[in-house]
Amino acid sequence: MSLLVTGSIGIDTVKTPHGVSENCLGGSSVYFAMAASFFSPVRFVGVVGTDCPFDLAEIFADRDIDLAGLEVRAGSKTFRWAGSYFEDMDQRRTDSLELNVLAEEPPRVPDKFKDSEFVFLANTAPYLQRELLGQVSNPRFVAADTMNCWIENNLEDLKALLRKIQCLIINADEAKLLARHHNLINAAEKILDMGIEVVVIKKGESGSITCNNEGDRFILPAYPTTGVVDPTGAGDSFAGAFLGYLAQTGKADFSTLKTAVAYGTVVASFAIAGFSLEGLGSIKKEQIDKRLKELRNLISF
Amino acid sequence: MSLLVTGSIGIDTVKTPHGVSENCLGGSSVYFAMAASFFSPVRFVGVVGTDCPFDLAEIFADRDIDLAGLEVRAGSKTFRWAGSYFEDMDQRRTDSLELNVLAEEPPRVPDKFKDSEFVFLANTAPYLQRELLGQVSNPRFVAADTMNCWIENNLEDLKALLRKIQCLIINADEAKLLARHHNLINAAEKILDMGIEVVVIKKGESGSITCNNEGDRFILPAYPTTGVVDPTGAGDSFAGAFLGYLAQTGKADFSTLKTAVAYGTVVASFAIAGFSLEGLGSIKKEQIDKRLKELRNLISF
Repeated sequence: MSLLVTGSIGIDTVKTPHGVSENCLGGSSVYFAMAASFFSPVRFVGVVGTDCPFDLAEIFADRDIDLAGLEVRAGSKTFRWAGSYFEDMDQRRTDSLELNVLAEEPPRVPDKFKDSEFVFLANTAPYLQRELLGQVSNPRFVAADTMNCWIENNLEDLKALLRKIQCLIINADEAKLLARHHNLINAAEKILDMGIEVVVIKKGESGSITCNNEGDRFILPAYPTTGVVDPTGAGDSFAGAFLGYLAQTGKADFSTLKTAVAYGTVVASFAIAGFSLEGLGSIKKEQIDKRLKELRNLISF
Repeated sequence: MSLLVTGSIGIDTVKTPHGVSENCLGGSSVYFAMAASFFSPVRFVGVVGTDCPFDLAEIFADRDIDLAGLEVRAGSKTFRWAGSYFEDMDQRRTDSLELNVLAEEPPRVPDKFKDSEFVFLANTAPYLQRELLGQVSNPRFVAADTMNCWIENNLEDLKALLRKIQCLIINADEAKLLARHHNLINAAEKILDMGIEVVVIKKGESGSITCNNEGDRFILPAYPTTGVVDPTGAGDSFAGAFLGYLAQTGKADFSTLKTAVAYGTVVASFAIAGFSLEGLGSIKKEQIDKRLKELRNLISF
């Protein structure tokens, strides 16, 4: 089934204990689309400035990613982010942030994308997420990401968004902040009470917790990997594989959601093995399926 | 098969967001023995002063715990610990510590315990752990715990211990400190290189990683619980159920170790549901088995 993503396209500079990658391609929708494309065609909506040095059509050439929603806005500058990771790669610091075109009007959803059934609203201001969602006619399953600044400063906007979507994919610290509760199971229940059907709480190298509003729960460790080069994009790659698998199967029952989370976990483990799209760009679907089986074996007793 | 534990018996004062428990029974060997007794008879070795207000024979009356190794030392005072937990119950602060009798000669292993096959050396100075181990004739499987102060100040002693035992059960932060590596899989491998067969790295509410020196790995999330009252003793309860199950089966192959870790995880989730022994004292083996099945379901996909 059809899968739409709206999110950022960025020029990233990333420092990790393994090295530096300057002015590389980043952004939530870029990682999402690459990850999702292993499972499903992707409809891409995003905006860059005329300074964007990346040719997404070329970069996505061997993927089924429809760039009809990619706007190159005259007179605008592309979003830029620079960040550093420390020895403990679960923590990072933003060194600089230039919203540029992301602080302007959002891109338009092309008419031919308006019938999209599965939708991912990557992290941005909740009112923008709602505006983008409003351009899709009658989606079946909408997931969103958010972050601490919106929880702290735009909570009512965020809650209004949650009442309109089915699934929130959120980091553990942000889940605790949103729910005002330190226990993640309690936090998940409080977030579900805000009006969504499913919440996926990501815990970095400690895996994820998935809960729905019917009382089902799924706990999954991260795939254990020693070769973490750059964690940037792990969350969006997770979301991409998660929604890509849902769109591929056309289902969102809890059994399907569990497999989708497992695929998200595994694809994220490849994404962090290199800077920018190096990790996701160098693998085949067979490697993802192999690692999924390994993950199942690693947790079986 | 026979299971011996050596460790502390303490008078604890614990503050958590859920309340305060003053001068309650604590200590590593106490939690360990209670947890292990669901699976196997336990041989108990420990020492208290004459000020100890607890009658362990009465407290353990309905358990198969042999107290022949419990010494009440005239003129000595019992170990005391006071600590506080914060909202995030994975972190705690030691408010006061009185080693008292633990700073004196260790207790003796009674002759009738010297043929013990499974042994747990709870956290104490590594040279004491070695001395206690030296009193056991020919154990089949010895596991030990340790902590940051021994890693920082008595590393060579600790490494000498590791060359004599089969299994180290250790917290994630301590594993990183011991291995001088931030990635837990790398840390596990470096610890295995120190001469042991199995390392179990505990990550609190994020579960555990178990690795052996044949390349086998097992990743397990914690059992998700909302009713965390007091995490004190979680690690020793984990170790108790882990070794209790091994002693019950008489095996230590990786398949058995995985089930043992799962039992450790589940029993720890009961231990933290109350202060002191409230959590472990109020459950039946059937509840443990039920929760083990639930854990298996929670991670299946």
